[in-house]
Amino acid sequence: MQTPHSNALDIVAARARVRTTTPLIQCITNTVVQQFTANVLLAIGASPAMLDHEADSGQFASIASGININFGTASSHQFLAADASIEVANAAGTPWVLDPVSVGGVEYRTSRIRAAAAQHPTAVRGNASEVAALAGMGLGGRGVDATDAVDDVITAASALSATTGGVVAISGEVDAIVLAEPGAAPGDDAGTATVVRVHGGHGLMPLVIGTGCSLGAVTAAYLAAAKAAGLPITGPTGLEAVVAAHAHFAAAGLKAGQVAQAPGSFAVAFLDALYSVTDSELAAVEITAAAVEVPA
Amino acid sequence: MQTPHSNALDIVAARARVRTTTPLIQCITNTVVQQFTANVLLAIGASPAMLDHEADSGQFASIASGININFGTASSHQFLAADASIEVANAAGTPWVLDPVSVGGVEYRTSRIRAAAAQHPTAVRGNASEVAALAGMGLGGRGVDATDAVDDVITAASALSATTGGVVAISGEVDAIVLAEPGAAPGDDAGTATVVRVHGGHGLMPLVIGTGCSLGAVTAAYLAAAKAAGLPITGPTGLEAVVAAHAHFAAAGLKAGQVAQAPGSFAVAFLDALYSVTDSELAAVEITAAAVEVPA
Amino acid sequence: MQTPHSNALDIVAARARVRTTTPLIQCITNTVVQQFTANVLLAIGASPAMLDHEADSGQFASIASGININFGTASSHQFLAADASIEVANAAGTPWVLDPVSVGGVEYRTSRIRAAAAQHPTAVRGNASEVAALAGMGLGGRGVDATDAVDDVITAASALSATTGGVVAISGEVDAIVLAEPGAAPGDDAGTATVVRVHGGHGLMPLVIGTGCSLGAVTAAYLAAAKAAGLPITGPTGLEAVVAAHAHFAAAGLKAGQVAQAPGSFAVAFLDALYSVTDSELAAVEITAAAVEVPA
Repeated sequence: MQTPHSNALDIVAARARVRTTTPLIQCITNTVVQQFTANVLLAIGASPAMLDHEADSGQFASIASGININFGTASSHQFLAADASIEVANAAGTPWVLDPVSVGGVEYRTSRIRAAAAQHPTAVRGNASEVAALAGMGLGGRGVDATDAVDDVITAASALSATTGGVVAISGEVDAIVLAEPGAAPGDDAGTATVVRVHGGHGLMPLVIGTGCSLGAVTAAYLAAAKAAGLPITGPTGLEAVVAAHAHFAAAGLKAGQVAQAPGSFAVAFLDALYSVTDSELAAVEITAAAVEVPA
Repeated sequence: MQTPHSNALDIVAARARVRTTTPLIQCITNTVVQQFTANVLLAIGASPAMLDHEADSGQFASIASGININFGTASSHQFLAADASIEVANAAGTPWVLDPVSVGGVEYRTSRIRAAAAQHPTAVRGNASEVAALAGMGLGGRGVDATDAVDDVITAASALSATTGGVVAISGEVDAIVLAEPGAAPGDDAGTATVVRVHGGHGLMPLVIGTGCSLGAVTAAYLAAAKAAGLPITGPTGLEAVVAAHAHFAAAGLKAGQVAQAPGSFAVAFLDALYSVTDSELAAVEITAAAVEVPA
Repeated sequence: MQTPHSNALDIVAARARVRTTTPLIQCITNTVVQQFTANVLLAIGASPAMLDHEADSGQFASIASGININFGTASSHQFLAADASIEVANAAGTPWVLDPVSVGGVEYRTSRIRAAAAQHPTAVRGNASEVAALAGMGLGGRGVDATDAVDDVITAASALSATTGGVVAISGEVDAIVLAEPGAAPGDDAGTATVVRVHGGHGLMPLVIGTGCSLGAVTAAYLAAAKAAGLPITGPTGLEAVVAAHAHFAAAGLKAGQVAQAPGSFAVAFLDALYSVTDSELAAVEITAAAVEVPA
């Protein structure tokens, strides 16, 4: 059963919180999408910083509002920097998001991603193949390709959420954001998970590199803004923050698709739309909620 | 003597093959052009992956459809990653393209590029200065600048093709794609080489960073699509694939020039054009063929 | 007291010098802005090269016309590369620009930036917070954020200029370019400094990543073009070159703002405007000069 989700006003409020708190987001992310991710963060009113050397990553994490980790082209420096930043973030209660790009495809990177996932990320954001692979239920492996459908990996996402204790967001034609109830864990009495689906976006988004990866950074910004406003970043308010980040992208994708029909101009229009999307356009994003059982 | 080249239909077919096979192209390339290269690959229907850490590069190469190597900003990680990926590609018969950017200008990088060139790349793609330098017949050295003209280095390219055994493509106002006949080698009875010239493109292309470097990745994608269709990637069908990649760029440059007169908007229009160029626009690219003697 | 600055014609001449000399600018800069910086350099008529590996950085510096150093995402390779390139540049009299991005925020990076600043950069270009921190008079630290106002750090900039012996440029709503008179030094008889203010630009520029960082590279290009024309790059002609670089950006920002109202399209229009800005648009940039005392 799916029910309409009544958080339209919350999304507008969440976007306003990002703009008023200007969260500083440390991105330890792949070099392919650093420019686009920085521009995306600036467009939504956040402040990007891509410091990724282990010599100062941890120190910078202590002043960052939120952190985005993505090992797409990680060097040894970035792997070590992420270790340091995650440790600081967990000690300080700073939200951090793990994007498990290319998990399952290659062994060393996969081992690094799994080690990070075991550190209880506030949120995981990936495509269906990546979420399935990280949950141990899929093959993954072609990098940015999503060869599994979002609906096929909801169960895997709920199990992953029960394991990490945080939100798991799956990007696709319709995004699904999943949060297992507290104490849920794979097993006989596994409990349930909430699944919120965000409709919108545009078919050209997968043809613009970084539309997925930058959403991880935006998710960190929304979580950081929630924290700055005194809201818990775990539980329902954490879930709402992640949903709001995805709704912002969904609304911007819809808006960009009204003025662009090819990927070059779409990328430009998408940045414009992230910046200029109105409250009513945000509130119009179709969001539905449902519950699923965490697998035994 | 130059004769019209009758492969118009082959170019349309080659583009269709890229779209239907969605080749996964591993790019070990400079950080300046990674974003643009990824967007170019997505625009033509291929799938990019920029994994460039030696810990998993070779493993990833084993699932890649094609590989693009460009040491423009190579770190130690990238040099080692390229070694591993090239070895895997050669063992598996996977097409790989070497872009000798900045060869001849600095010693360490030059030694690395020469070592890669000695591994028999399926194709080499560079500007005239780089091809001349790699063939040992020029000075090279200012990075992306091309100070030699394409026509001045055809002979050097034919000698290089005889040495590598693969295609050598020279980018310029008119591109030249050169393939020495099998068994041709610098020496007394050196044999001949086919030279295919691709006309088109636009004068603003050299003002958009990555229009050269991304063509190496597109060349790898066209070769990978040919292989996926069961065509040999050496000999005439390999040559055709490289020509088709260059024709796609030439057509897109012409199309972008119809809507943009300055480099910022041209870059956007070029990505749009790569995506939306029609079969008739592809077939209209002027292509001529000639033969030259490989130098004794 | 501020007086109109009469160098309108010098700015037009300075831009012409960049176009006619095509300076080759080595950028050891952060990976976030490499693509944008390269496109900016191409748009103004310069030639970019991002070689940043210590194995060949120094050798490349010996053929470069100017060098831009920015440690925003510096790896160990880049720190070592910068050491080598700076040494070569100073020995050869090649102009080099230091962008102290994120100085003061984290210890290791700060120590590296301070060590570079002690090597007498031809010019330092940063925002107000960074200039204050590098002068030892502020906190700095949020990366690309400027939390101090330009006018608040003029005194700090004059002290920094007296220490480095070069130009210090502060980017903000109105840019200030500061040069202490020869022999000026913090102390009892500290001397005076010239402060040139460049008005223009656009409020969307801080929302496009790289508009600050690429200005450092453009400053290096203008200094290199001055040197190629036989002008001293220290003293008044060095100051004029840095002012002209900032005026070019100010004019392009104004022009881009006439056609774009959101950051994605503004970035495109800004690159177009850098390329197409006319002599009369350059000459119309409002520039004022004043003198300040270097602090005792």
